[in-house]
Amino acid sequence: MSKAVVPISGGLDSSIILSIAAQKHDEVYAISYDYGQRHDKELLYAGIQVDEYDIEEHKIIDLWFFKDIASSSALTNSNIDVAHARDVLGDAQTVNYVPFRNMMMLSVACAYAEAIEANVVYHGSALVDSQAGYWDGSKEFLSSINSLIGLNRKSKIKIEAPLIKLSKQQIVKIGIDNKVKFEDTWTCYEGKEKACGYCTACSSRIQGFLQNNIKDPVEYERTDIPW
Amino acid sequence: MSKAVVPISGGLDSSIILSIAAQKHDEVYAISYDYGQRHDKELLYAGIQVDEYDIEEHKIIDLWFFKDIASSSALTNSNIDVAHARDVLGDAQTVNYVPFRNMMMLSVACAYAEAIEANVVYHGSALVDSQAGYWDGSKEFLSSINSLIGLNRKSKIKIEAPLIKLSKQQIVKIGIDNKVKFEDTWTCYEGKEKACGYCTACSSRIQGFLQNNIKDPVEYERTDIPW
Repeated sequence: MSKAVVPISGGLDSSIILSIAAQKHDEVYAISYDYGQRHDKELLYAGIQVDEYDIEEHKIIDLWFFKDIASSSALTNSNIDVAHARDVLGDAQTVNYVPFRNMMMLSVACAYAEAIEANVVYHGSALVDSQAGYWDGSKEFLSSINSLIGLNRKSKIKIEAPLIKLSKQQIVKIGIDNKVKFEDTWTCYEGKEKACGYCTACSSRIQGFLQNNIKDPVEYERTDIPW
Repeated sequence: MSKAVVPISGGLDSSIILSIAAQKHDEVYAISYDYGQRHDKELLYAGIQVDEYDIEEHKIIDLWFFKDIASSSALTNSNIDVAHARDVLGDAQTVNYVPFRNMMMLSVACAYAEAIEANVVYHGSALVDSQAGYWDGSKEFLSSINSLIGLNRKSKIKIEAPLIKLSKQQIVKIGIDNKVKFEDTWTCYEGKEKACGYCTACSSRIQGFLQNNIKDPVEYERTDIPW
Protein backbone atom coordinates (compact mmCIF):
# COMPACT_ATOMS: atom_id res chain seq x y z
CA MET A 1 0.00 0.00 0.00
CA SER A 2 1.54 3.27 -1.12
CA LYS A 3 0.37 6.42 0.68
CA ALA A 4 1.44 9.96 -0.13
CA VAL A 5 0.92 13.42 1.34
CA VAL A 6 0.53 16.16 -1.27
CA PRO A 7 0.76 19.80 -0.16
CA ILE A 8 -1.71 21.76 -2.29
CA SER A 9 -1.27 25.51 -2.58
CA GLY A 10 -3.96 25.99 -5.19
CA GLY A 11 -1.30 27.03 -7.71
CA LEU A 12 -0.11 25.54 -10.96
CA ASP A 13 2.79 23.42 -9.72
CA SER A 14 0.97 21.64 -6.93
CA SER A 15 -2.00 20.94 -9.21
CA ILE A 16 0.41 19.17 -11.59
CA ILE A 17 1.93 17.23 -8.70
CA LEU A 18 -1.53 16.20 -7.53
CA SER A 19 -2.25 14.85 -11.03
CA ILE A 20 1.00 12.84 -10.89
CA ALA A 21 0.49 11.55 -7.33
CA ALA A 22 -3.13 10.53 -8.02
CA GLN A 23 -1.86 8.16 -10.74
CA LYS A 24 0.97 6.75 -8.68
CA HIS A 25 -0.29 6.06 -5.15
CA ASP A 26 -3.05 3.96 -3.63
CA GLU A 27 -4.00 6.69 -1.19
CA VAL A 28 -3.41 10.44 -1.44
CA TYR A 29 -3.78 12.84 1.49
CA ALA A 30 -3.85 16.56 0.71
CA ILE A 31 -2.64 19.34 3.00
CA SER A 32 -2.94 23.12 2.58
CA TYR A 33 -1.61 25.98 4.66
CA ASP A 34 -3.45 29.08 5.73
CA TYR A 35 -0.68 31.46 6.79
CA GLY A 36 -2.45 34.75 6.30
CA GLN A 37 -1.07 34.97 2.78
CA ARG A 38 -2.11 37.98 0.75
CA HIS A 39 -3.41 35.63 -1.92
CA ASP A 40 -5.51 33.47 0.38
CA LYS A 41 -7.97 32.85 -2.46
CA GLU A 42 -5.49 30.16 -3.51
CA LEU A 43 -7.03 28.07 -0.71
CA LEU A 44 -10.39 28.10 -2.49
CA TYR A 45 -8.68 26.79 -5.59
CA ALA A 46 -6.88 24.13 -3.52
CA GLY A 47 -10.29 22.86 -2.41
CA ILE A 48 -11.60 22.78 -5.99
CA GLN A 49 -8.54 20.83 -7.18
CA VAL A 50 -8.79 18.28 -4.39
CA ASP A 51 -12.44 17.64 -5.28
CA GLU A 52 -11.38 16.60 -8.79
CA TYR A 53 -9.50 13.55 -7.50
CA ASP A 54 -10.20 10.62 -5.22
CA ILE A 55 -8.45 12.02 -2.14
CA GLU A 56 -8.70 10.42 1.31
CA GLU A 57 -8.62 13.65 3.29
CA HIS A 58 -7.77 17.35 2.89
CA LYS A 59 -6.27 19.08 5.93
CA ILE A 60 -6.13 22.87 6.10
CA ILE A 61 -3.49 23.87 8.61
CA ASP A 62 -3.62 27.19 10.47
CA LEU A 63 -0.17 28.79 10.35
CA TRP A 64 -1.33 32.33 11.01
CA PHE A 65 1.58 32.92 13.36
CA PHE A 66 3.59 33.52 10.20
CA LYS A 67 1.98 36.93 9.87
CA ASP A 68 3.35 37.74 13.29
CA ILE A 69 6.88 36.39 13.16
CA ALA A 70 7.67 36.55 9.45
CA SER A 71 6.48 40.05 8.73
CA SER A 72 9.42 40.76 6.42
CA SER A 73 7.60 39.18 3.47
CA ALA A 74 5.30 40.87 0.98
CA LEU A 75 3.22 37.71 1.06
CA THR A 76 2.35 38.06 4.74
CA ASN A 77 2.60 41.84 5.19
CA SER A 78 0.14 43.91 3.21
CA ASN A 79 2.28 47.04 3.72
CA ILE A 80 5.03 45.64 1.51
CA ASP A 81 4.52 45.60 -2.26
CA VAL A 82 4.83 42.26 -4.05
CA ALA A 83 7.99 42.09 -6.19
CA HIS A 84 7.48 42.20 -9.93
CA ALA A 85 9.49 40.05 -12.29
CA ARG A 86 11.41 43.06 -13.58
CA ASP A 87 12.73 43.83 -10.06
CA VAL A 88 14.23 40.44 -9.43
CA LEU A 89 17.92 39.95 -10.09
CA GLY A 90 17.90 36.19 -9.73
CA ASP A 91 20.08 35.65 -6.69
CA ALA A 92 19.06 37.54 -3.58
CA GLN A 93 15.92 36.54 -1.75
CA THR A 94 13.14 38.85 -2.90
CA VAL A 95 10.52 40.44 -0.67
CA ASN A 96 8.22 37.64 -1.79
CA TYR A 97 10.35 35.18 0.18
CA VAL A 98 8.75 34.04 3.46
CA PRO A 99 11.42 33.06 6.02
CA PHE A 100 11.79 29.30 6.34
CA ARG A 101 8.36 28.73 4.81
CA ASN A 102 9.23 25.52 2.99
CA MET A 103 11.07 23.93 5.90
CA MET A 104 8.19 24.82 8.15
CA MET A 105 5.51 23.49 5.81
CA LEU A 106 7.43 20.33 5.00
CA SER A 107 7.88 19.65 8.72
CA VAL A 108 4.11 19.84 9.14
CA ALA A 109 3.54 17.60 6.10
CA CYS A 110 6.06 15.08 7.48
CA ALA A 111 4.35 15.09 10.89
CA TYR A 112 1.07 14.35 9.10
CA ALA A 113 2.75 11.65 7.00
CA GLU A 114 4.19 9.99 10.09
CA ALA A 115 0.80 10.01 11.81
CA ILE A 116 -1.00 8.37 8.85
CA GLU A 117 1.98 6.15 7.96
CA ALA A 118 2.59 7.61 4.51
CA ASN A 119 6.05 7.15 3.06
CA VAL A 120 6.13 9.95 0.49
CA VAL A 121 5.66 13.69 0.95
CA TYR A 122 5.59 15.82 -2.18
CA HIS A 123 7.27 19.18 -2.50
CA GLY A 124 6.21 21.58 -5.23
CA SER A 125 9.46 23.43 -5.99
CA ALA A 126 10.26 23.96 -9.65
CA LEU A 127 13.46 25.06 -11.41
CA VAL A 128 12.32 28.69 -11.43
CA ASP A 129 12.14 28.80 -7.63
CA SER A 130 15.86 28.32 -7.06
CA GLN A 131 16.58 30.56 -10.06
CA ALA A 132 14.42 33.24 -8.42
CA GLY A 133 16.56 33.12 -5.29
CA TYR A 134 14.61 30.79 -3.00
CA TRP A 135 17.24 28.70 -1.17
CA ASP A 136 14.43 26.49 0.10
CA GLY A 137 13.37 25.63 -3.45
CA SER A 138 16.76 24.27 -4.54
CA LYS A 139 17.98 20.73 -5.22
CA GLU A 140 20.50 21.14 -2.40
CA PHE A 141 17.65 21.94 -0.01
CA LEU A 142 15.75 18.83 -1.12
CA SER A 143 18.76 16.59 -0.71
CA SER A 144 19.65 18.04 2.69
CA ILE A 145 16.14 17.87 4.14
CA ASN A 146 15.92 14.24 3.02
CA SER A 147 19.15 13.50 4.89
CA LEU A 148 17.64 15.11 7.97
CA ILE A 149 14.33 13.25 7.95
CA GLY A 150 16.16 10.02 7.06
CA LEU A 151 17.38 10.04 10.69
CA ASN A 152 13.87 9.23 11.90
CA ARG A 153 14.21 5.80 13.51
CA LYS A 154 10.73 4.48 12.83
CA SER A 155 9.06 6.30 9.93
CA LYS A 156 10.87 6.19 6.64
CA ILE A 157 9.52 9.20 4.76
CA LYS A 158 10.99 10.59 1.58
CA ILE A 159 10.31 14.05 0.18
CA GLU A 160 9.91 13.96 -3.59
CA ALA A 161 9.98 17.01 -5.84
CA PRO A 162 9.20 15.83 -9.38
CA LEU A 163 9.27 19.37 -10.81
CA ILE A 164 12.49 20.59 -9.23
CA LYS A 165 14.54 20.32 -12.44
CA LEU A 166 11.72 21.31 -14.78
CA SER A 167 11.02 24.61 -16.51
CA LYS A 168 7.51 26.10 -16.52
CA GLN A 169 7.29 25.06 -20.17
CA GLN A 170 7.81 21.42 -19.18
CA ILE A 171 5.46 21.72 -16.22
CA VAL A 172 2.60 23.16 -18.31
CA LYS A 173 3.23 20.34 -20.83
CA ILE A 174 2.68 17.70 -18.11
CA GLY A 175 -0.48 19.53 -17.12
CA ILE A 176 -1.76 19.36 -20.69
CA ASP A 177 -0.95 15.63 -20.89
CA ASN A 178 -2.60 14.93 -17.51
CA LYS A 179 -5.69 17.01 -18.41
CA VAL A 180 -5.21 19.37 -15.45
CA LYS A 181 -7.93 22.01 -15.29
CA PHE A 182 -5.75 25.12 -15.46
CA GLU A 183 -8.77 27.34 -14.90
CA ASP A 184 -9.02 25.88 -11.39
CA THR A 185 -5.56 27.04 -10.33
CA TRP A 186 -4.47 30.33 -8.75
CA THR A 187 -0.87 31.53 -9.01
CA CYS A 188 -0.84 35.33 -8.62
CA TYR A 189 0.68 36.69 -5.38
CA GLU A 190 -1.83 39.54 -5.38
CA GLY A 191 -5.19 38.33 -4.08
CA LYS A 192 -7.31 40.36 -6.50
CA GLU A 193 -10.17 39.34 -8.75
CA LYS A 194 -7.98 38.82 -11.81
CA ALA A 195 -4.33 37.71 -11.82
CA CYS A 196 -2.02 40.75 -12.11
CA GLY A 197 0.33 39.38 -14.78
CA TYR A 198 3.32 41.27 -13.36
CA CYS A 199 4.42 39.55 -10.14
CA THR A 200 7.19 36.94 -10.24
CA ALA A 201 4.67 34.11 -9.91
CA CYS A 202 2.44 35.36 -12.78
CA SER A 203 5.44 36.03 -15.00
CA SER A 204 6.85 32.53 -14.95
CA ARG A 205 3.39 31.01 -15.34
CA ILE A 206 2.62 33.14 -18.38
CA GLN A 207 5.96 32.14 -19.89
CA GLY A 208 5.10 28.47 -19.46
CA PHE A 209 1.87 28.85 -21.39
CA LEU A 210 3.41 31.02 -24.13
CA GLN A 211 6.18 28.48 -24.65
CA ASN A 212 3.52 25.78 -25.15
CA ASN A 213 1.67 28.00 -27.61
CA ILE A 214 -1.55 27.93 -25.61
CA LYS A 215 -3.54 30.60 -23.84
CA ASP A 216 -3.82 30.42 -20.06
CA PRO A 217 -7.57 30.16 -19.27
CA VAL A 218 -7.07 32.29 -16.13
CA GLU A 219 -8.01 35.96 -16.57
CA TYR A 220 -5.32 38.62 -16.28
CA GLU A 221 -5.44 42.36 -15.56
CA ARG A 222 -2.41 42.81 -17.79
CA THR A 223 -3.55 43.39 -21.35
CA ASP A 224 -0.33 43.09 -23.38
CA ILE A 225 0.27 39.34 -23.02
CA PRO A 226 1.03 37.99 -26.54
CA TRP A 227 -1.14 34.83 -26.44
CA MET B 1 25.59 42.76 18.34
CA SER B 2 24.77 39.17 19.22
CA LYS B 3 21.10 38.20 19.14
CA ALA B 4 19.69 34.80 20.07
CA VAL B 5 16.31 33.09 19.98
CA VAL B 6 15.66 30.80 22.95
CA PRO B 7 12.73 28.38 22.80
CA ILE B 8 11.31 28.15 26.32
CA SER B 9 9.16 25.16 27.20
CA GLY B 10 8.86 25.98 30.87
CA GLY B 11 10.85 22.86 31.70
CA LEU B 12 14.20 22.34 33.38
CA ASP B 13 16.45 22.17 30.31
CA SER B 14 15.23 25.32 28.60
CA SER B 15 15.41 27.26 31.89
CA ILE B 16 19.09 26.30 32.10
CA ILE B 17 19.63 27.34 28.48
CA LEU B 18 17.94 30.66 29.15
CA SER B 19 20.36 31.24 32.03
CA ILE B 20 23.29 30.49 29.70
CA ALA B 21 21.99 32.61 26.80
CA ALA B 22 21.21 35.59 29.05
CA GLN B 23 24.91 35.73 30.01
CA LYS B 24 26.18 35.30 26.47
CA HIS B 25 24.13 37.50 24.13
CA ASP B 26 23.33 41.18 23.87
CA GLU B 27 19.68 40.50 23.07
CA VAL B 28 17.60 37.42 23.85
CA TYR B 29 14.23 36.69 22.25
CA ALA B 30 12.11 33.95 23.80
CA ILE B 31 9.62 31.75 21.97
CA SER B 32 7.16 29.20 23.35
CA TYR B 33 4.77 26.81 21.64
CA ASP B 34 1.18 26.14 22.49
CA TYR B 35 0.43 22.86 20.72
CA GLY B 36 -2.42 21.62 22.83
CA GLN B 37 0.00 19.69 24.99
CA ARG B 38 -1.46 17.78 27.91
CA HIS B 39 0.91 19.67 30.21
CA ASP B 40 0.04 23.15 28.94
CA LYS B 41 0.71 24.54 32.40
CA GLU B 42 4.36 24.50 31.31
CA LEU B 43 3.50 27.68 29.38
CA LEU B 44 2.71 29.48 32.63
CA TYR B 45 6.13 28.51 33.92
CA ALA B 46 7.72 29.67 30.65
CA GLY B 47 6.26 33.11 31.27
CA ILE B 48 7.55 33.19 34.87
CA GLN B 49 11.06 32.21 33.72
CA VAL B 50 11.15 34.84 31.00
CA ASP B 51 10.20 37.52 33.54
CA GLU B 52 13.32 36.68 35.55
CA TYR B 53 15.64 37.87 32.78
CA ASP B 54 16.03 40.95 30.61
CA ILE B 55 14.33 39.53 27.51
CA GLU B 56 13.44 41.65 24.46
CA GLU B 57 10.23 39.82 23.59
CA HIS B 58 8.41 36.56 24.34
CA LYS B 59 6.38 35.08 21.49
CA ILE B 60 3.80 32.37 22.17
CA ILE B 61 3.13 30.49 18.95
CA ASP B 62 -0.16 28.71 18.30
CA LEU B 63 0.57 25.24 16.94
CA TRP B 64 -2.76 23.69 17.84
CA PHE B 65 -2.93 21.89 14.53
CA PHE B 66 -0.60 19.36 16.16
CA LYS B 67 -3.57 17.97 18.10
CA ASP B 68 -5.24 17.30 14.79
CA ILE B 69 -2.45 15.84 12.68
CA ALA B 70 -0.18 14.32 15.31
CA SER B 71 -2.76 12.47 17.34
CA SER B 72 -0.50 9.44 17.79
CA SER B 73 1.21 11.06 20.77
CA ALA B 74 0.25 10.83 24.42
CA LEU B 75 1.27 14.47 24.73
CA THR B 76 -1.38 15.69 22.30
CA ASN B 77 -4.04 12.99 22.70
CA SER B 78 -5.63 12.71 26.12
CA ASN B 79 -6.92 9.21 25.30
CA ILE B 80 -3.38 7.81 25.28
CA ASP B 81 -1.60 7.28 28.60
CA VAL B 82 1.76 8.98 29.07
CA ALA B 83 4.63 6.44 29.07
CA HIS B 84 6.31 5.82 32.40
CA ALA B 85 10.05 5.41 32.71
CA ARG B 86 9.69 1.69 33.44
CA ASP B 87 7.96 1.10 30.06
CA VAL B 88 10.69 2.64 27.96
CA LEU B 89 13.27 0.35 26.40
CA GLY B 90 15.57 3.12 25.24
CA ASP B 91 15.43 2.74 21.50
CA ALA B 92 11.96 2.83 19.94
CA GLN B 93 10.05 6.08 19.93
CA THR B 94 7.70 6.04 22.90
CA VAL B 95 4.09 7.23 22.85
CA ASN B 96 5.39 10.47 24.34
CA TYR B 97 7.08 11.24 21.03
CA VAL B 98 5.27 13.91 18.97
CA PRO B 99 5.93 13.41 15.23
CA PHE B 100 8.50 15.87 13.89
CA ARG B 101 7.95 18.21 16.83
CA ASN B 102 11.53 19.43 17.08
CA MET B 103 11.97 20.00 13.36
CA MET B 104 8.71 21.86 13.29
CA MET B 105 9.49 24.03 16.30
CA LEU B 106 13.02 24.76 15.17
CA SER B 107 11.71 25.83 11.75
CA VAL B 108 9.45 28.34 13.48
CA ALA B 109 12.29 29.55 15.71
CA CYS B 110 14.53 29.95 12.64
CA ALA B 111 11.83 31.92 10.80
CA TYR B 112 11.60 34.20 13.83
CA ALA B 113 15.41 34.46 13.99
CA GLU B 114 15.59 35.39 10.31
CA ALA B 115 12.93 38.07 10.76
CA ILE B 116 14.69 39.72 13.72
CA GLU B 117 18.20 39.04 12.32
CA ALA B 118 19.38 36.80 15.12
CA ASN B 119 22.23 34.44 14.34
CA VAL B 120 21.75 31.80 17.03
CA VAL B 121 18.75 29.62 17.81
CA TYR B 122 18.97 27.42 20.89
CA HIS B 123 17.72 23.86 21.06
CA GLY B 124 17.02 22.23 24.41
CA SER B 125 17.84 18.59 23.72
CA ALA B 126 19.86 16.79 26.37
CA LEU B 127 21.68 13.44 26.35
CA VAL B 128 18.69 11.65 27.84
CA ASP B 129 16.48 12.61 24.88
CA SER B 130 18.38 10.57 22.32
CA GLN B 131 18.85 7.81 24.89
CA ALA B 132 15.08 7.77 25.37
CA GLY B 133 14.56 7.17 21.66
CA TYR B 134 13.91 10.66 20.29
CA TRP B 135 15.67 10.80 16.90
CA ASP B 136 15.06 14.54 16.85
CA GLY B 137 17.00 15.02 20.08
CA SER B 138 20.22 13.41 18.83
CA LYS B 139 23.60 14.91 17.89
CA GLU B 140 23.09 13.61 14.36
CA PHE B 141 19.83 15.55 14.11
CA LEU B 142 21.55 18.72 15.31
CA SER B 143 24.37 18.36 12.82
CA SER B 144 22.02 17.56 9.94
CA ILE B 145 19.56 20.40 10.61
CA ASN B 146 22.49 22.82 10.78
CA SER B 147 23.64 21.62 7.34
CA LEU B 148 20.14 22.24 6.05
CA ILE B 149 19.72 25.77 7.38
CA GLY B 150 23.30 26.56 6.34
CA LEU B 151 21.95 26.61 2.77
CA ASN B 152 20.06 29.84 3.47
CA ARG B 153 21.68 32.40 1.18
CA LYS B 154 21.16 35.50 3.29
CA SER B 155 20.63 34.65 6.94
CA LYS B 156 23.39 32.71 8.62
CA ILE B 157 21.70 31.08 11.57
CA LYS B 158 23.20 28.35 13.71
CA ILE B 159 21.30 26.05 16.03
CA GLU B 160 23.17 25.47 19.28
CA ALA B 161 22.35 22.77 21.79
CA PRO B 162 24.64 23.26 24.78
CA LEU B 163 23.07 20.39 26.76
CA ILE B 164 23.05 17.73 24.05
CA LYS B 165 25.98 15.77 25.48
CA LEU B 166 25.13 16.42 29.13
CA SER B 167 23.48 14.16 31.69
CA LYS B 168 20.69 15.47 33.91
CA GLN B 169 23.23 15.46 36.75
CA GLN B 170 25.42 17.90 34.82
CA ILE B 171 22.42 20.00 33.76
CA VAL B 172 21.12 20.41 37.30
CA LYS B 173 24.68 21.34 38.35
CA ILE B 174 24.73 24.22 35.82
CA GLY B 175 21.33 25.30 37.12
CA ILE B 176 22.71 25.41 40.68
CA ASP B 177 25.75 27.43 39.53
CA ASN B 178 23.58 29.85 37.51
CA LYS B 179 21.07 30.24 40.37
CA VAL B 180 18.15 29.00 38.28
CA LYS B 181 14.90 29.01 40.25
CA PHE B 182 14.01 25.33 39.93
CA GLU B 183 10.67 25.94 41.63
CA ASP B 184 9.66 27.98 38.57
CA THR B 185 10.07 25.09 36.11
CA TRP B 186 7.57 22.44 35.06
CA THR B 187 8.73 19.14 33.60
CA CYS B 188 5.98 16.55 34.15
CA TYR B 189 4.12 15.35 31.04
CA GLU B 190 0.91 15.05 33.06
CA GLY B 191 -0.69 18.45 33.51
CA LYS B 192 -1.84 17.88 37.11
CA GLU B 193 -1.41 19.97 40.23
CA LYS B 194 1.70 18.12 41.39
CA ALA B 195 4.30 16.45 39.18
CA CYS B 196 3.61 12.71 38.89
CA GLY B 197 7.13 11.44 39.47
CA TYR B 198 6.65 8.45 37.18
CA CYS B 199 6.65 9.70 33.56
CA THR B 200 9.87 9.63 31.54
CA ALA B 201 10.31 13.39 31.96
CA CYS B 202 9.88 13.33 35.77
CA SER B 203 12.13 10.30 36.12
CA SER B 204 15.17 11.82 34.49
CA ARG B 205 14.63 15.11 36.32
CA ILE B 206 14.44 13.39 39.70
CA GLN B 207 17.63 11.47 38.91
CA GLY B 208 19.43 14.74 38.12
CA PHE B 209 18.55 16.17 41.53
CA LEU B 210 19.34 12.96 43.43
CA GLN B 211 22.76 12.74 41.79
CA ASN B 212 23.47 16.30 42.96
CA ASN B 213 22.34 15.37 46.48
CA ILE B 214 19.68 18.08 46.59
CA LYS B 215 15.91 17.97 46.83
CA ASP B 216 13.87 19.20 43.89
CA PRO B 217 11.72 22.10 45.19
CA VAL B 218 8.86 21.03 42.87
CA GLU B 219 6.15 18.97 44.61
CA TYR B 220 5.56 15.38 43.55
CA GLU B 221 2.61 13.01 43.92
CA ARG B 222 5.05 10.13 44.18
CA THR B 223 5.98 9.61 47.82
CA ASP B 224 8.92 7.17 47.66
CA ILE B 225 11.55 9.48 46.17
CA PRO B 226 14.73 9.06 48.30
CA TRP B 227 15.69 12.74 48.65
